[in-house]
Amino acid sequence: MGNCAACCRGFWCRAKNPDVRISLPAVCFVWQIAMIILFGVFVRYDEESDAHWSEYKLANNITSDIENDFYYRYPSFQDVHVMIFVGFGFLMTFLKRYSFGGVGFNFLIAAFGLQWALLVQGWFHFLDPADGYIKIGIENIINADFCVAGCLIAYGALLGKVSPVQLMVLTLFGIPLFAVEEYIILHVFHVRDAGGSMVIHTFGGYYGLTISWILYRPKLDKRLNGSVYQSDVFAMIGTLFLWMFWPSFNSAISDHGDGQHRAVINTYLALASSVLTTFAISSLSAKRGKLDMVHIQNATLAGAVAMGSAAEFMITPYGSLIVGFCCGILSTFGYLVITPFMEKYMKIQDTCGVHNLHAMPGVLGAVVGAITAAAASESVYGHEGLVNTFNFKGKYAERTPATQGGFQAAGLCVALAFGIVGGAIVGLILRLPFWGDPSDDNCFDDEVYWEVPEDEESIPPILEYNSHMVGKNTDRMSNFTVEQS
Amino acid sequence: MGNCAACCRGFWCRAKNPDVRISLPAVCFVWQIAMIILFGVFVRYDEESDAHWSEYKLANNITSDIENDFYYRYPSFQDVHVMIFVGFGFLMTFLKRYSFGGVGFNFLIAAFGLQWALLVQGWFHFLDPADGYIKIGIENIINADFCVAGCLIAYGALLGKVSPVQLMVLTLFGIPLFAVEEYIILHVFHVRDAGGSMVIHTFGGYYGLTISWILYRPKLDKRLNGSVYQSDVFAMIGTLFLWMFWPSFNSAISDHGDGQHRAVINTYLALASSVLTTFAISSLSAKRGKLDMVHIQNATLAGAVAMGSAAEFMITPYGSLIVGFCCGILSTFGYLVITPFMEKYMKIQDTCGVHNLHAMPGVLGAVVGAITAAAASESVYGHEGLVNTFNFKGKYAERTPATQGGFQAAGLCVALAFGIVGGAIVGLILRLPFWGDPSDDNCFDDEVYWEVPEDEESIPPILEYNSHMVGKNTDRMSNFTVEQS
Amino acid sequence: MGNCAACCRGFWCRAKNPDVRISLPAVCFVWQIAMIILFGVFVRYDEESDAHWSEYKLANNITSDIENDFYYRYPSFQDVHVMIFVGFGFLMTFLKRYSFGGVGFNFLIAAFGLQWALLVQGWFHFLDPADGYIKIGIENIINADFCVAGCLIAYGALLGKVSPVQLMVLTLFGIPLFAVEEYIILHVFHVRDAGGSMVIHTFGGYYGLTISWILYRPKLDKRLNGSVYQSDVFAMIGTLFLWMFWPSFNSAISDHGDGQHRAVINTYLALASSVLTTFAISSLSAKRGKLDMVHIQNATLAGAVAMGSAAEFMITPYGSLIVGFCCGILSTFGYLVITPFMEKYMKIQDTCGVHNLHAMPGVLGAVVGAITAAAASESVYGHEGLVNTFNFKGKYAERTPATQGGFQAAGLCVALAFGIVGGAIVGLILRLPFWGDPSDDNCFDDEVYWEVPEDEESIPPILEYNSHMVGKNTDRMSNFTVEQS
Repeated sequence: MGNCAACCRGFWCRAKNPDVRISLPAVCFVWQIAMIILFGVFVRYDEESDAHWSEYKLANNITSDIENDFYYRYPSFQDVHVMIFVGFGFLMTFLKRYSFGGVGFNFLIAAFGLQWALLVQGWFHFLDPADGYIKIGIENIINADFCVAGCLIAYGALLGKVSPVQLMVLTLFGIPLFAVEEYIILHVFHVRDAGGSMVIHTFGGYYGLTISWILYRPKLDKRLNGSVYQSDVFAMIGTLFLWMFWPSFNSAISDHGDGQHRAVINTYLALASSVLTTFAISSLSAKRGKLDMVHIQNATLAGAVAMGSAAEFMITPYGSLIVGFCCGILSTFGYLVITPFMEKYMKIQDTCGVHNLHAMPGVLGAVVGAITAAAASESVYGHEGLVNTFNFKGKYAERTPATQGGFQAAGLCVALAFGIVGGAIVGLILRLPFWGDPSDDNCFDDEVYWEVPEDEESIPPILEYNSHMVGKNTDRMSNFTVEQS
Repeated sequence: MGNCAACCRGFWCRAKNPDVRISLPAVCFVWQIAMIILFGVFVRYDEESDAHWSEYKLANNITSDIENDFYYRYPSFQDVHVMIFVGFGFLMTFLKRYSFGGVGFNFLIAAFGLQWALLVQGWFHFLDPADGYIKIGIENIINADFCVAGCLIAYGALLGKVSPVQLMVLTLFGIPLFAVEEYIILHVFHVRDAGGSMVIHTFGGYYGLTISWILYRPKLDKRLNGSVYQSDVFAMIGTLFLWMFWPSFNSAISDHGDGQHRAVINTYLALASSVLTTFAISSLSAKRGKLDMVHIQNATLAGAVAMGSAAEFMITPYGSLIVGFCCGILSTFGYLVITPFMEKYMKIQDTCGVHNLHAMPGVLGAVVGAITAAAASESVYGHEGLVNTFNFKGKYAERTPATQGGFQAAGLCVALAFGIVGGAIVGLILRLPFWGDPSDDNCFDDEVYWEVPEDEESIPPILEYNSHMVGKNTDRMSNFTVEQS
Repeated sequence: MGNCAACCRGFWCRAKNPDVRISLPAVCFVWQIAMIILFGVFVRYDEESDAHWSEYKLANNITSDIENDFYYRYPSFQDVHVMIFVGFGFLMTFLKRYSFGGVGFNFLIAAFGLQWALLVQGWFHFLDPADGYIKIGIENIINADFCVAGCLIAYGALLGKVSPVQLMVLTLFGIPLFAVEEYIILHVFHVRDAGGSMVIHTFGGYYGLTISWILYRPKLDKRLNGSVYQSDVFAMIGTLFLWMFWPSFNSAISDHGDGQHRAVINTYLALASSVLTTFAISSLSAKRGKLDMVHIQNATLAGAVAMGSAAEFMITPYGSLIVGFCCGILSTFGYLVITPFMEKYMKIQDTCGVHNLHAMPGVLGAVVGAITAAAASESVYGHEGLVNTFNFKGKYAERTPATQGGFQAAGLCVALAFGIVGGAIVGLILRLPFWGDPSDDNCFDDEVYWEVPEDEESIPPILEYNSHMVGKNTDRMSNFTVEQS
């Protein structure tokens, strides 16, 4: 009877139907075929990845193959790629029964998103006026990975509460929103944002949080919303790869030479500083000073998010340390206070705490970038250095650092607006009843969308006689006997 | 009594003796000592890794150290290296009780194989006629890693059913087979196969499958041939590192400049496309649209295998997407239909499904390569681009793309022949009774070759009083009480 | 009653108080703030990471941005970075209940150590006499990572037995000890030690072992000092990333061109050779030839440690194989015989076996380096090659290889002295009673310093009705029923 009631509550009596057998394949096929057609119409190799490169080299007086942009950026690209798939993916394996969904759906939407991003970013930034083609090379695929990051951040807020079809829809709309926002910020406002404090983190964070607010589940079952020992160790794989490779993220599309070099050093220092303040606040906030894995997995990364705009500026090494210092505190404090507050009073359920890891540090990073830009001077940068760093060339030749600072601040407002308004619209679309999202009782559970293998406990028979062989499995044996009694 | 009978069945009454205490150390020592002697006789540094480089630079008018091939290829080499050891290794940890064997034996045979490959490939391709030495540099160690990949693919088909000594024998013969096959395909036929669709994947796949066919076990115990939740997450580490770094694999030994650049873009796109069709078919094939981790772990990679030959060609971005699209479908379909069919009717037990991940996509990749090569034209590549891409130089200066396409197809036949015939011979050798392979009852079980630690359940006593300290382990406590009752 | 007694033993009745709620945050904050102040006073960008780079290029006739040292060293830096955080971190997750501490405290002290190292190494090696600033660039952050490695090695010997505050103190003193030792060896003695056989491994190993000896715990509870199946697989992540990227470690700060190229090849070969002899000895030493994961996780790496000094020398490929061959044997033998001996008779408890993986191979590596240096000749290196490799320039222009060999040997003595004497002093400091170290009963247990999540077994209720939905969790269900009966 109790079973039956539980059963009713859990499965039969709900309106939601998480069967995606038609919708998921349909969405995957339709969108992949659309990609193929659109790539056929629009996308070609750029001059550095085309077989005409040898002629291009000659024509442009390039003496060596090593001058191909590929060699400047490929190592950074691979690091960014690892962050997108292993970093974000494994960071989301921390839930006890949602590791498949965390790493698997991350994989799915990133693989779709990067194709879609190549197209949409191409239309806005890389369309060759001569022949109407988007010409792609190493910088485009880095940018596509960046663009995907925005949607993966949004996924973090929704982890465990949405269906893969909803995630595909979230990505379908998220990528063009990102591209338009990026176009306005980087091209119309001529803002510098190499690591995407505004463009990626602020936008992605608020996009996801707004969707989560609209999809609010008042009766969400929290029993599976937590980690186990092993899943926390898996999540550390994600954390560490994000942490280690973030210098590559912030420098991947910076200027050749000192730009990339400086962005690496600044990010490296800000990250190191975040770690210490995260450990400090985490320990300070718990009985007996016990550290919380959630803080270590996330807040240690906040420093790099906040260096996203200013990474290539002359913020100085100690400036980077200060940014990391503040962010570690702010982000850990967010996990302790702001996330519970938002859930209780603002009806925003933020599974991974993207508000603390991306949204807030992103806003802070934009502010840091604006201040650092406004404070730039020829005495610090040198004349040519100033022009190069802020790209004060062409129609921006007359712009002063102070004006630049103002535009940096304006960029932040654009990112916020796109995140919140875009998130509201996409959130309403995702509330439509046919996306196959799970019921409140089935959230955070891989059983809904995955064939989950049986657990290890179900293999005693073979262990029984093995134990004779190895002579040490007595515990397993006794366990087995108890279970059969 | 029952125990005793089980015990007899399980251990005492079988003919197979998996004791490798003499044979494994003997094989390791003998072969390692042989390597040292042969390296002493044959192997030296090449001009770019020798201390005479500064003189060589001067003599060859090289102005900068950055022109050393090391800087063109080292980042790709490290990515390939990760694929070989972490990628292949962790992909094979998916079995519930064979993770040690998956990652550990992969480690052993890769470490032996790369030394042996440096020698054998050196004899065929890199022998300096002036002094009879093999001169090694960065390109050689990439090629050695490639050569090893062939044997690791073969291991995938045999996972859990062979002894480490058999694997060493498989590698001992596999490397020279690979090197001869590679010599015929790349040098005699002058075929282009940068990522090894034929040379590595087709050969490796059929080599392993043929051996598995000869070592067929009709009474194989399947209870341990499956995953558990955690082991599937471990396997995703392997999958993702393979997936992310495959662009480096296909571009590692391509031409400097546009060749490497284009190979990366093509592989990146084919992989992304594979992911979507894999998810689609996996979902379509199961009740309620549930995804199967086996498909996600493997079929998502098939697109890159099929880009192995054509990666450096002007296959166009949408061409790459189409290749990935087809491969994701084909490979997932293979897991659903072909693998069970082969096991039931053809007596081929393919533990990891290498037929679906390597053999079939490899054949498809060879066909794609042949067609793309045959369709090449000066209008697309430019004159110099065509010559560079297909290396129509020296005695091949007169070869046309159409002829090249024919040779590409011929290369596929060579790879198939070497895989199947070589596999048959090595399979027969591996059936000899003294290699220490496990009995049918002990397959897929690490207990046979590893000291497996006791399970976590056997540590209750210390948890008991800890629970007082931390005040939250009541579940563990009650668990413990039950087990003792 | 029994419970009460256990409780007393376990918690109330001990003198040690592992509460770090005040001390850990205090240490983190104070030291991070100190870093910010000292960086503000001392640290600036170097000419290659400063915005004045475009002027510097012009002044120094540098034609291309690719000549920025960043492009020579950044891929190697990232590999080293992965070794420090994922390699060392995950290698230390092998304990069944100390994975959080292994990877987490590694993260903490590395993040602090690298900042401190930038300062201290800067004072000794990189102080710009013109303005008194330390100028940092890519080479400095590689060196900082190296310096941190010494302290992480020391942590390996102490794993599970010390508090995070003690580790911060260990790092606070370890970094300056390292920097002084490095200054004497590399600058005063002009010794070559690219991969740090002496400077890093010998020093770090004996530093940790001496501290462990001083902190000897006669009543150490060993129940948690062991692995479980999953934790051994996690540790293999660490092992493999160390193994794969060690060629980058030994070549990261070698000479541009052939120096880096040769260091990679030598290390790659030594590592491969180590693997085979490790498997051989491990199998030979156990009943039925069963392999031990502890050996595979550690001794396979010993070859690279022993190539630390000689990596950039013309040791020849077979010479590298021989070094790896010997080290695999020596290190595995160490785990089998020397570690138990040291614990029993010398009162040195070495959790990770750093004596076998770092200390002994480091000493061997120093000897190999001394011999190889002494045997160097112009016929092998060429005149310019000899000068470049050993940097026989300026006031060392007259030094002969034989003399160099003598200085290499002297360098080893310095490393040993600093490790042992420094370790003794720091060990005495760490014995002070206020560092929050755990009691003998609580060693190797994450519960002491971490909020450990409840185990998976404690989630049956939700599984009960899920099992209706998925129709396959019968095992879990019956399990649950038994536990409640």
